[in-house]
Parts: sequence; structure tokens; C-alpha cells
Amino acid sequence: MTGIAVVEGDGIGHEVVPVAREILAAVRPDLEFFEVEVGYGRWERTGSACDEETIADLKSADAILFGAVTTPPDPGYRSALLQIRRALDLYANVRPIRGEGVDIIIVRENTEGLYSGIEWTEPDRACTVRVVSRRGSERIARCACSLAAARRHLTIGNKANVLKSDSLFVDICRREAARAGVPCTTRFIDALSLDILMHPARYDVIVTTNIFGDILSDTAAYLVGGLGMLPSGNIGERHALFEPVHGSAPDIAGQGIANPIAAIRSAAMLLTHTGDPESAAVIEEAIDRVLNAGIRTRDLGGNAGTREFGAAVLREV
Amino acid sequence: MTGIAVVEGDGIGHEVVPVAREILAAVRPDLEFFEVEVGYGRWERTGSACDEETIADLKSADAILFGAVTTPPDPGYRSALLQIRRALDLYANVRPIRGEGVDIIIVRENTEGLYSGIEWTEPDRACTVRVVSRRGSERIARCACSLAAARRHLTIGNKANVLKSDSLFVDICRREAARAGVPCTTRFIDALSLDILMHPARYDVIVTTNIFGDILSDTAAYLVGGLGMLPSGNIGERHALFEPVHGSAPDIAGQGIANPIAAIRSAAMLLTHTGDPESAAVIEEAIDRVLNAGIRTRDLGGNAGTREFGAAVLREV
Ligand SMILES: CC(C)[C@H](C(=O)O)[C@@H](O)C(=O)O
Ligand SMILES: CC(C)[C@H](C(=O)O)[C@@H](O)C(=O)O
Repeated sequence: MTGIAVVEGDGIGHEVVPVAREILAAVRPDLEFFEVEVGYGRWERTGSACDEETIADLKSADAILFGAVTTPPDPGYRSALLQIRRALDLYANVRPIRGEGVDIIIVRENTEGLYSGIEWTEPDRACTVRVVSRRGSERIARCACSLAAARRHLTIGNKANVLKSDSLFVDICRREAARAGVPCTTRFIDALSLDILMHPARYDVIVTTNIFGDILSDTAAYLVGGLGMLPSGNIGERHALFEPVHGSAPDIAGQGIANPIAAIRSAAMLLTHTGDPESAAVIEEAIDRVLNAGIRTRDLGGNAGTREFGAAVLREV
Repeated sequence: MTGIAVVEGDGIGHEVVPVAREILAAVRPDLEFFEVEVGYGRWERTGSACDEETIADLKSADAILFGAVTTPPDPGYRSALLQIRRALDLYANVRPIRGEGVDIIIVRENTEGLYSGIEWTEPDRACTVRVVSRRGSERIARCACSLAAARRHLTIGNKANVLKSDSLFVDICRREAARAGVPCTTRFIDALSLDILMHPARYDVIVTTNIFGDILSDTAAYLVGGLGMLPSGNIGERHALFEPVHGSAPDIAGQGIANPIAAIRSAAMLLTHTGDPESAAVIEEAIDRVLNAGIRTRDLGGNAGTREFGAAVLREV
């Protein structure tokens, strides 16, 4: 039996996750779900956003369906999401961007770079160490190459013209691509951020370091209608967590208007990951049919609510 | 008398700078120009991209008109441009983005952040220190606030939900904005990169750290027709350098097809900086008239060459 941990999190996580879960349960009645509470709301109530026990619960799952957590810019607060990515060693953040003329997968290194957590404050300055490790680069490069091997080619997003740490990253990615027989090119992250908008068809799989992938995937969301559309997988050797790329969106939370597509697609990615690409395809096609029927949430110019959109997908699966 | 150092640099720098210089000379026959050789071409020929003497020459100028230098991702090569920004302490990289419905100025900190140059390699990893200093943040915040005070408001682009170093940056920018009476908001750099594309009219002056500004300005170029349009100023207390945001573009160099608008606009920014906004406006209006007459280089869908476009602007000034 497959156990799925469900984390709603904060904000619109409470709205989009129940919808995605219902669709998941409809296509796979055998799945067992258990809820895990994580996030800023929990922190405000109990003083802890996520503790050892939570981590153990998440580790016990076959996969995690995650909503969104609020991460305030409070130096005293460490994001529960970052804590989970770290504790479960979810090193690959896989972000597919698909739409009219766009079929790109951004593979973002998810454990190091500027997210090393190595930071300190001196009286007159604050420092963060950007870490690019050989092992970290190798495993993300292999992940990207194995995706690219079944597709077309690999682009290595980097800033090696300024950062020596990126020369290591590029060298390792190049070597893994050669080993996998994957054609690859390099592109500086600033030029890439523009070129992905101007010529999306030029890109297939893109591998890059942590914060560059963070920025690039939000930028690329522009190509397909915004963040409401983008699912992601946070994948490690032993654990995997699937979440919409959007955050908790406090500005629209509680209104029932959030676009659940990113969460539903994340549920589909979860199924593919657990060995059931057929059911994933059923969900993806159902979303397409609903969109083609003109049913859309407000961010896409329609007026369907979150639950209404979800109910339409449910009818199609 | 005003002395202008002219650096063509590499690649299309040799094509767009002569055009911009000719227009500058036409509107201000009193300017005195002197050429300074810098860049990768020089490095290949002489083993030095830029030396002490070059820096002294550049320092002797009232302002510098700069083309573009090739910065290969060679760990043994340090970009001449970075060397000059550092040596002349050009701490503010001011990048106006103007077009249909878009009037944004990105103010990029230009001397620290991930460009600290503090880097080392261990056997198993490579590290770069991201430095956010109090003094560095204060001066860039003041620069941005003084621009915003004459406009509408300030957005602080940051990633303080992950980087403690950005909490310092945000705090200082907020304080300077309050002091200057400038309304300000903060925005995480990933969300900002998307929102600037979706809702450009929401943005006015944006201040951010070095590499975020690097990426964000290329991204925002999408709003106004690409990199061929964007000028920039690298400004310090005592020196100032004006350059197109585009690089040396080896792929199109030597063909006479590069768009010279970014370089010509950089020349106009130079004039404003040296106290002659009237002549700058003459140049800007001449560009607009030429564009309105349908004369365009290839990147904008036309077929005018670099010199042809330049000649058209020259007739209009
Ligand atoms: C909320 C934040 C910590 C997170 C990140 O920076 O990784 C988010 O932006 C994301 O992309 O998942
Ligand atoms: C060439 C490179 C070193 C430079 C930078 O990163 O600053 C360029 O991208 C820019 O934006 O001026």
C-alpha cells in the first residue's frame, strides 16, 4: 500500500491541496493519505513550524503532497520547506514548464549554493557562503542528464564568467552530459533569463544551481500563464515531495479563487514518480479538457473558483 | 573642457561605439575624446586585458563611453569590466528600462554581493562569499532613493526569506527610503522576476543586490524589445562609465548588424550625468523619431545595419 503524506501548509495551501488530494483519491482509490501539519501557522500557534517528529512522519511516507508555506523574511525563522528539503535530502527540484510552444524542464539543485545556511554577521556586513560541491553537482547533473537523455538536450545555466564556484559546476555537468551522450551547451544565467522568454523553443532540459533555478522558474512561468500553472518535484534518493511552485499567496488566501492546477499537476508528478505514469496522464488530460472547455480561474482570465475548477477536473478523470 | 574616454572593447563594441561617439560629437562638438584599449582582444594580443596605466587613463576622464568586453568563463581570467568597476568604485549600476507602458529604473549594487571576489576552492567544493556591507547598502540605497524621490516609489528586490545577508540590505534600504520620504515595498527576487513581466506598470525604481540586478535587468529587457535597447550607467562618487547592457555578442560581431540604440542611449546618459540633460533629450528624441519612421535593426524586425541606423539618428539630432 502506498502512503501519501499531505501537507496543506499555509495560505492557499489549505485551498488547493484538498482539491488535488480529492482528484488523486479518485484516480487511485488504493492510496492512503495522512495529514501532517507544517508551516508558519503552526509556528504561530505552537512555536514550531516543523520538528523531529514531523520529519519522521514525512520520512515514513512513500511520497509527500505539499501545498505552500509562508516564509517570512524574519531572520529568526527558518523556512519549514527548506528544513524539509534538507532533512530529507531532496536534492533535485524538478520544474516542468509546459504550454503552447514551450516544453522545458528546469532542474534546480536544491540543497546547497546560496542555500548552504553558512551565514554570519559581522558588525559592518553580513555574509552568506555559496557552496558548490563536487558531489552535489554530480548528482544534480546526473538527474538532469537522465531526463535529457530521453528528450533532446541540456543547457547548463551558470555564471562562470564571474563565479569560480560555477566553473566547477559547469565542468561536472559537461562531463556527465558527455558520459550520458547528451548534447549540451552552457549559457550565462542573465542571458538565459532573457533568452528563455525570447526563444523558449530553444530550451529543453536546463540544469542550474539553487537560487538561479529559483529565479529562472518563476521567470519562465510567464510563458505559460503564471505561477498558477507550475508543479514541481523535490526529489531525493529515498524521499520525494511534490508541490506547486507558487507560494502561500497571502494576498488571495481564504477567498477560494486560487488556481489549483499547479497543485493538481504536482499530484500527477507524484503518481509518475511512484510508478504510475498512466494515472498521471489521466489527470493531465483531464486538466487540458477542462481548460479547453473554457473553465478557468481568475488568474487565467476566467471566473471559476478553486473548488469549481477542481470539480470540473474530477468529472473528467 | 570635458574629456571622454572611449573604450570599444570587443566584438560588437567595435561597431556600436563609433556610432554612439559620432552622435555625441555631433550634439556636443566641444567634447574631447580619447581611446583606451581594454578587453579580451587586448589580452589575447598582449597578455593584459587592462592594467594600472589603463585604470589611470580611465580615471583621468570626465566620463567613460564603454562598448562591451568578452568575459570568457575562464577561471584564470578576471573580467576587465569587473576590474574597472572595482578600481573606479563604480558602485551604482543604473539601468533604465523604457518603452510602451514601461518606465522602470533598476539600481543594481555594483561592487559586492556575489561579486566580492572572495572565493576559494577546496578539494571537494568551491565557495564564493556573498557580502552585503552596511556601507555598500547605504550608498546604493541613497542612490536609488534620490532617483525615486523625483519619481514615484521604490521596490527592494531581495531574498531575505532565505539569505540573512539580505535582511541587512532590506533594513538599510527601508531606513533610507523613510529618511528620503520615498514610499517603498519589498519583493522577493523570484516573485519580482515574474511580476515585472506580468505587471511592469507596478514598478518604478527597483534597488537590488549585484547578481539579482544582473539577472533582473536582462529579464526586463524582454519588455522593451531585448538587450539592444538597454543603456546603463556605472556610477561612483568620482567616476562614471556608460555602457550598453548587452555584451560583445560574438555570434553577430563583424557583420554590421548590431543594434546601436543601447550604446547611443548610454551616450545620452553620459551627457545627463555630466550636466547636459538637454543634449541627452535631443539624442533620445532623435532615436524615437527614427524608430517611428520604421527604421530598425534586425533584432527589432527591420533590416537597417548598425551604421545605417546611426546615420539616421545623426540626421535627426
Ligand atoms: C519560499 C522559498 C524559501 C522557496 C525557495 O526559495 O526555494 C520558494 O521560492 C521556492 O521556489 O520553492
Ligand atoms: C560580463 C559580466 C561580467 C557582466 C556582469 O555580470 O556584471 C554583465 O553581465 C553585465 O551585466 O554587465
